[in-house]
Amino acid sequence: LNRPALRDALRAIVGERHTLCEAADMKSYLADWRGAYAGSALAVVRPGSTREVSEVVRACARAGAPVVPQGGNTGMCGGAAPDTDGHSVVVALGRMNRVRAVDPLNNAMTVEAGCVLEAAQRAAQEAGRLFPLSLAAQGSCQIGGNLATNAGGINVLRYGNTRDLVLGIEVVLPDGEIWNGLRALRKDNRGYDLKNLFIGSEGTLGIITAAVLKLFPAAPQRATAMVALDDPAQAVALLAALQAACGATLCAFELIGRKCLDLVLRHRDAARDPFSANHPWYVLLELAAGDSATGLREGLEQAIAAAMEKGQLVDAVLASSLAQAAALWQLRETIPEATVANGPAFRSDIAVSTADVPAFIEAAREALRTRHPGSEMLCFGHLGDGNLHFNATSPPAADDWPRGVADTVYPLVERFHGSFSAEHGVGQAKRAELVRYKDAAEIALMRRIKSALDPAGLMNPGKVL
Amino acid sequence: LNRPALRDALRAIVGERHTLCEAADMKSYLADWRGAYAGSALAVVRPGSTREVSEVVRACARAGAPVVPQGGNTGMCGGAAPDTDGHSVVVALGRMNRVRAVDPLNNAMTVEAGCVLEAAQRAAQEAGRLFPLSLAAQGSCQIGGNLATNAGGINVLRYGNTRDLVLGIEVVLPDGEIWNGLRALRKDNRGYDLKNLFIGSEGTLGIITAAVLKLFPAAPQRATAMVALDDPAQAVALLAALQAACGATLCAFELIGRKCLDLVLRHRDAARDPFSANHPWYVLLELAAGDSATGLREGLEQAIAAAMEKGQLVDAVLASSLAQAAALWQLRETIPEATVANGPAFRSDIAVSTADVPAFIEAAREALRTRHPGSEMLCFGHLGDGNLHFNATSPPAADDWPRGVADTVYPLVERFHGSFSAEHGVGQAKRAELVRYKDAAEIALMRRIKSALDPAGLMNPGKVL
Repeated sequence: LNRPALRDALRAIVGERHTLCEAADMKSYLADWRGAYAGSALAVVRPGSTREVSEVVRACARAGAPVVPQGGNTGMCGGAAPDTDGHSVVVALGRMNRVRAVDPLNNAMTVEAGCVLEAAQRAAQEAGRLFPLSLAAQGSCQIGGNLATNAGGINVLRYGNTRDLVLGIEVVLPDGEIWNGLRALRKDNRGYDLKNLFIGSEGTLGIITAAVLKLFPAAPQRATAMVALDDPAQAVALLAALQAACGATLCAFELIGRKCLDLVLRHRDAARDPFSANHPWYVLLELAAGDSATGLREGLEQAIAAAMEKGQLVDAVLASSLAQAAALWQLRETIPEATVANGPAFRSDIAVSTADVPAFIEAAREALRTRHPGSEMLCFGHLGDGNLHFNATSPPAADDWPRGVADTVYPLVERFHGSFSAEHGVGQAKRAELVRYKDAAEIALMRRIKSALDPAGLMNPGKVL
Repeated sequence: LNRPALRDALRAIVGERHTLCEAADMKSYLADWRGAYAGSALAVVRPGSTREVSEVVRACARAGAPVVPQGGNTGMCGGAAPDTDGHSVVVALGRMNRVRAVDPLNNAMTVEAGCVLEAAQRAAQEAGRLFPLSLAAQGSCQIGGNLATNAGGINVLRYGNTRDLVLGIEVVLPDGEIWNGLRALRKDNRGYDLKNLFIGSEGTLGIITAAVLKLFPAAPQRATAMVALDDPAQAVALLAALQAACGATLCAFELIGRKCLDLVLRHRDAARDPFSANHPWYVLLELAAGDSATGLREGLEQAIAAAMEKGQLVDAVLASSLAQAAALWQLRETIPEATVANGPAFRSDIAVSTADVPAFIEAAREALRTRHPGSEMLCFGHLGDGNLHFNATSPPAADDWPRGVADTVYPLVERFHGSFSAEHGVGQAKRAELVRYKDAAEIALMRRIKSALDPAGLMNPGKVL
């Protein structure tokens, strides 16, 4: 690897100003936002166009330098951080942040990879449409990263994961060639589905440089409620009842364990328990509909009253103002920081079948109790998707923490035919889990595809596989 | 290729009774239902289990015999018919037709590949749920074929294509290995999306033997209307207005050209024009909602009245009974047979951006007029998906029919960045179009994947690529 020659080539492509080679300039690109994965690089480049990305990748391929694509660098698994070899070129997409086109009649918009999610949401809104992807990092994460990791979030129940929100993509392939798959079609059966192969591949098969995203009718009307429950089984029954009663207007259904609410109430002075009594479980739920829909709130009231009669919930609070709805959502959104403030914890992002959630929680709690005495379950998540952040506090004495809890929880997830990574991906963090828990036939298929598309293995090495 | 030895091996796997080698026994498996693609085979086998499929594929791989997977054999592009070499083994999945499990709380059901679509719909209905895939061949097409071709149909607008309705699949790979990807998870980010690679690959990468399908809340309430329009631009504006007003309850939005309605009225004695005057264009549309929803019909009436005021439609008929709704749907569903009865025609299955539909129709009609005088446009389709069956009658004198019209229409589709195959696939029928109109970079990627997964090229050769 001729480092000076490659740096010169990169400068010639993206310009001196956008080729960072000094440690101080590169610093913020070399570690993930939590500082858990820190590496080094030969250079960080900030290309301004797909053409430049293509030439950068081609130059790296010729020189034999690994390429690490990076968006907002908000991932949870170190997928955008380079390794410690110092041979990699980090390709930061942030300058490619344009909304290229919004087409409300086709319910589609074309954005570049570096477009911040919130900016994409705003562009849709200005056209009278909704781009429903919504997650905690939306103020800084970028669309390219959302696609590369198939991000989830709070609206998956109604609108699906990121891959369900994409009509087409543009990709720079490992040899630098550009595949322009920027279609705005809702039906296209001309051969293999390459789009979904790149979405969720975490930059290991190419660099997504732009995408055509699906838009939906705006849904500004909201009806929000928090309900109190005895156990997660009630939540699963309530979910089915609300889906039957409210159809596709049900867009969020978030499970919250009591211990999580306790931590939020302790962490944030302004937080108030919406109920006068303590309950072991809660669900925060929301309906959404267009401006002209009628009876959204009344429908929710009736459905909740019916569910209460059937014993599917214990108590309920319906937000009667936007401020009340916001206060309920703040309880949910404060959970991550409140649990961090509480001290070390095992954190997970698992999925099982929605119907299996109650049995899984019971089994996992029992395993925690017997194998990790003193550790307390911190469980919350997107119940409507079967996606739980099943976390656990550190016990008083813990030699193998948090590894030991992982070895308790993940095999249990496996027994329920679940996933150890529901929405966060694999990155560097969960490569060992991939090999340990994933079907060998599937890993072999993944390797064959990786070799076929990136024979030199230079696209984001050390991630996923 | 040792034919007797392979036949013996197949008999040993699936049994004498399910190994067909006589011409008379094989006949119905060797040509597509329209008789447009007729081939021959070494044998037709009817395996009864995934294990048997695996052993059949392994035996064929060892012997070097091509494998042709076949479901209900209702495809439009010859994807399930063997070639004329006579070396192929047709693997007919019809005996594997069980619904393995229905899980209403997880909104999922597991079915085998040979399950007829209508049986899958029924199983969902009996559990109080909806499996929304719906298309003309549903009484005989099989789930395996629906997945292999990523079938579309009339509910795509609301529920998506087949790939959007699948949580997991089981596949026998080209070497006979079984990949069990029968997950019932709504979120799973553990590596590459292999599921979507097999869905829509038309049996060229492996044989799908079972699937976990998504279910939805039952939506038995319907509000159905037919509206008359001056032009397709009104239809596009009306679609946007109804999506805004009626949200996700809008589940069908079918465009019908006057000439199609004429043919239906002539073909079917019982058919009646719902309007007293002639109009150049119509849309058949439907809302659907759960039992407890209120005001579905009133909402549609209001939305249609508002659209009429804005000049988005000329006249409207709302079905006031199930029988009236059925009569309207029968007009739409009779179009294919009425156009066939009318004589030879160029038939297509194209997609463009929904917003581009009016400009495309205008351009295609004009091209037809100037280049194929006497040929009349027969245009109908799923406007909500930008998917048109843009057909054209044979002109009085036509040397190069229907090839000549294809060479007029498809380049135009290309100019609109559209697809020459929206929902029917490629099969044998559209391989030339694939090479002619599809991006070279994309075809190269497809070939690399095909080689990586099926290096011997024995899975359904001569299809797609």
